[in-house]
Amino acid sequence: MDVVYPPGLSPAALDRALKAFGRVVGPDAVFATEEDRQDYSDKFAIDDAAHQPLGGVAPASAAEVQAIVRVANEHRVPIWPISRGKNLGYGATAPRLSGTVVVDMSRMKKIEVDVENGTALLEPGVGFYDLYDHLQANKIPLWLSVPGNSWGSVIGNALDRGVGYTPYGENTTKLCGMEVVLPDGDIVRTGMGALAGSPTWQLYRYGFGPAWDQMFVQSNFGIVTKAGMWLMPEPEQVRGLDVEVDRIEDLAPLIDAIGALRREGVLQQSPTIGNWLRAANIVSTRQEWTDKKGALSDDVITAIRKKFGLGWWGVSLRLYGRESVTNATFPILEQAMRALKPLSMKPTLWRRGDPIPPTQGGWMGVPMTFPMQNANWYGGRGGHIGFSPILPQSGKLALEQFRRAYARYQEFGMDPQTSFAFGERHLINVNAVLLDKDDPAFMKRVDPFLRALIADAKAHGYGEYRTHLNYMDAVAGTYDFNDHALRRLNEKVKNALDPAGILAPGKSGIWPAAYAKERGK
Amino acid sequence: MDVVYPPGLSPAALDRALKAFGRVVGPDAVFATEEDRQDYSDKFAIDDAAHQPLGGVAPASAAEVQAIVRVANEHRVPIWPISRGKNLGYGATAPRLSGTVVVDMSRMKKIEVDVENGTALLEPGVGFYDLYDHLQANKIPLWLSVPGNSWGSVIGNALDRGVGYTPYGENTTKLCGMEVVLPDGDIVRTGMGALAGSPTWQLYRYGFGPAWDQMFVQSNFGIVTKAGMWLMPEPEQVRGLDVEVDRIEDLAPLIDAIGALRREGVLQQSPTIGNWLRAANIVSTRQEWTDKKGALSDDVITAIRKKFGLGWWGVSLRLYGRESVTNATFPILEQAMRALKPLSMKPTLWRRGDPIPPTQGGWMGVPMTFPMQNANWYGGRGGHIGFSPILPQSGKLALEQFRRAYARYQEFGMDPQTSFAFGERHLINVNAVLLDKDDPAFMKRVDPFLRALIADAKAHGYGEYRTHLNYMDAVAGTYDFNDHALRRLNEKVKNALDPAGILAPGKSGIWPAAYAKERGK
Repeated sequence: MDVVYPPGLSPAALDRALKAFGRVVGPDAVFATEEDRQDYSDKFAIDDAAHQPLGGVAPASAAEVQAIVRVANEHRVPIWPISRGKNLGYGATAPRLSGTVVVDMSRMKKIEVDVENGTALLEPGVGFYDLYDHLQANKIPLWLSVPGNSWGSVIGNALDRGVGYTPYGENTTKLCGMEVVLPDGDIVRTGMGALAGSPTWQLYRYGFGPAWDQMFVQSNFGIVTKAGMWLMPEPEQVRGLDVEVDRIEDLAPLIDAIGALRREGVLQQSPTIGNWLRAANIVSTRQEWTDKKGALSDDVITAIRKKFGLGWWGVSLRLYGRESVTNATFPILEQAMRALKPLSMKPTLWRRGDPIPPTQGGWMGVPMTFPMQNANWYGGRGGHIGFSPILPQSGKLALEQFRRAYARYQEFGMDPQTSFAFGERHLINVNAVLLDKDDPAFMKRVDPFLRALIADAKAHGYGEYRTHLNYMDAVAGTYDFNDHALRRLNEKVKNALDPAGILAPGKSGIWPAAYAKERGK
Repeated sequence: MDVVYPPGLSPAALDRALKAFGRVVGPDAVFATEEDRQDYSDKFAIDDAAHQPLGGVAPASAAEVQAIVRVANEHRVPIWPISRGKNLGYGATAPRLSGTVVVDMSRMKKIEVDVENGTALLEPGVGFYDLYDHLQANKIPLWLSVPGNSWGSVIGNALDRGVGYTPYGENTTKLCGMEVVLPDGDIVRTGMGALAGSPTWQLYRYGFGPAWDQMFVQSNFGIVTKAGMWLMPEPEQVRGLDVEVDRIEDLAPLIDAIGALRREGVLQQSPTIGNWLRAANIVSTRQEWTDKKGALSDDVITAIRKKFGLGWWGVSLRLYGRESVTNATFPILEQAMRALKPLSMKPTLWRRGDPIPPTQGGWMGVPMTFPMQNANWYGGRGGHIGFSPILPQSGKLALEQFRRAYARYQEFGMDPQTSFAFGERHLINVNAVLLDKDDPAFMKRVDPFLRALIADAKAHGYGEYRTHLNYMDAVAGTYDFNDHALRRLNEKVKNALDPAGILAPGKSGIWPAAYAKERGK
């Protein structure tokens, strides 16, 4: 593939910049061959030509990140930081603007755990497996809250507002204190970390005055070189119920029942209701069921559900804590679920010291990767791409949203992997749109399908919490109150902090003045 | 008292500005007489001449706030927004910079409650009593988390990171979505509110891209005209223990025991350990015990404790939720406290439908003002001023901090009202330094005393989470990592959003370029 340069940058200028990066990190940590560019591209892209990285540079320290940022300013080279680049379905390692150099933080893997206080100070290269191994090796009784695919960075997940399965599941809410390299190369510590030598950096997130952590989340205002995360003390017991409900419309009462328990605090975990395909596509592939293209027929769906004993929807609810307390709470959960007359209801129990069954690891802080099997649903070159609007915890509204989306899935001949992840007061309707990259006709339908979903959601007041590079401008465009006042605010701050516009231009639809013409391209 | 004008503004220019404000809000909502200035001054000030407001202007709508901001820009008049101005001990209604015009939001009192989802959208003039009355009148089973003095604004409390007594006690963490007038008069909605007409504005706080709510907390980056707050569903039961421990050093094991339960999640409320004076000074005055000036003797302290049955420290622990669950949790709490061999331990119980005893209201969302009685400790013109460093949840470190501070209290002849408020992983060591404004010699000692406390804390890595106008520069100065990188970041954003520097110059130690010379004055 031809090398794509960023707007306004000549090959010669770029060459000088790469050499300067090499002087910072050593030539072995600059990656700019054709193969390197392939490595940093998005394997799940709809359009392989879009979002082409120019190469990568991998710093080993915050000081090197500062130097990289200064080089980028001097040479006017756009850079795109990634933690470990496992933001699959949302762009992974690839940058928004073709020609951008990826700043690959995966070499920065320092871990400091404060056992007593249940916190960790992590560099962005630390993956869930790294941290899990560290906790195991040191017999530290703290648990992670892992996402469905745990290859990625702990910090990176929190910085993209990813979710895990335990009561600490909304990882972004467990961030506490950051070290950030700003676009001008300055380095700042947020919260109590701004007080040099403070023992409370990972304990209190706000510090004095405005608090900045969430400003560095999903943004292009700085490169996070360290962040604090809270970890859950290992509970005495985990009791739960795996519940399946039969019909599409059973989604509504299921959401209403769980939402009420969640808001009340009876349930403190963030459970996810998933449909039959979310369960089936990690243990089977499409050709086992049909060789017909287009939407799956109800007969096929019924056969799949029958084979695996699945409802249209299933959910795993878990209670964490002391034995006596979870035992007292369990009947409340059980009664609420029994009242729904579910298809099936299976209790689970784990006590401290019990081995953790592999299929249960996700609820007990054990990293996993098997859900990634879904990318093989069509066989061949697969993938998935996210569509994830935020909804109220209303069964009625969520069912309506699903029915609208399902009609679109059928109209465009797509198979619906969909789920509803509970926060304390919201739902994230995560759709992993499964790709068949070997079928060009199919792939042509994906973009109009996703744009239809975004427009349908917007028409009902719903916006996405996270999106693929392809849709960042479209989604940012739906946040339009007062003629896009939020965008004006974002870009005013962007231009103040990053006058040359070198840091991740276009991320989350935020374009610096220097690249303003690239919006929407 | 002579009128103090802001730097660079003539009386004539000011007069034109006040007339322009009058055209916005009507002349009856501009307050600029000598009496008005008195009304907006800080009654608890150490130095009555400092922080002199020039007057006030009271808008009735966000549109009027926008117009006020535009007038302020046009006439270069500094303005200082207050919600209801009850930030007592931290400056109340008064501005940092003398000559600033107070923007008094207390007329903006709209309340919208979403009963099902447990949220409220509030204007800043809504006080805890207003919201409580609204919930009562409409029989809405949602609870507030009230601070010790509940005269103030619900939003204002959250915007200053004040704390209440229930599991929703860290009010700033319950903010969800804001409407903000920026210093240039633009109006922005944060989180999902940026998506016009979204039903999820009060349900999910982050939206898409960087999240701004905490940037408008304790800052001078915008005027919040509306904000969402989460409210706690009324629990079935509240069970608790009131615990008193005998000796100063019993603080350490008490903190360690409660901290562990808090981090584990057995205890979900944010309890406060207070000393004997915190309990005694709302039911008695100093002259009942002694007529000697200077530090209270141990004999006097013993007499006070004996009279009211107080330990050196006391704490009220509360469990909220279903009957069966709180009943199962209670023995864990009781056992942990019994192991400390406390002076006394008194169980409490409230069930849904029971009347709420007046002394218990704070733990059950009922506003109260009786703790304000502490301002009368010395009789005559009293008051208090805050000193509130953040500490780890370590008994050893907290006791050391207290002993250092107590030695300062004795050195400067002050009576120690002190407390330790638990967050999930931090302590706020709230000191309400009680004032005797009728004793000039006493009042002279207050400033060096507070500066000594700030310096002592800083030497151990502790910084304040909130401070009086007088100490904003000093406290901001302790947040000094990388030669004050946080200040550089704050002020870069400040100057980008507020080039004329009209909005609350000096708030939290953030000075716009236009008033940079005022820092430290």
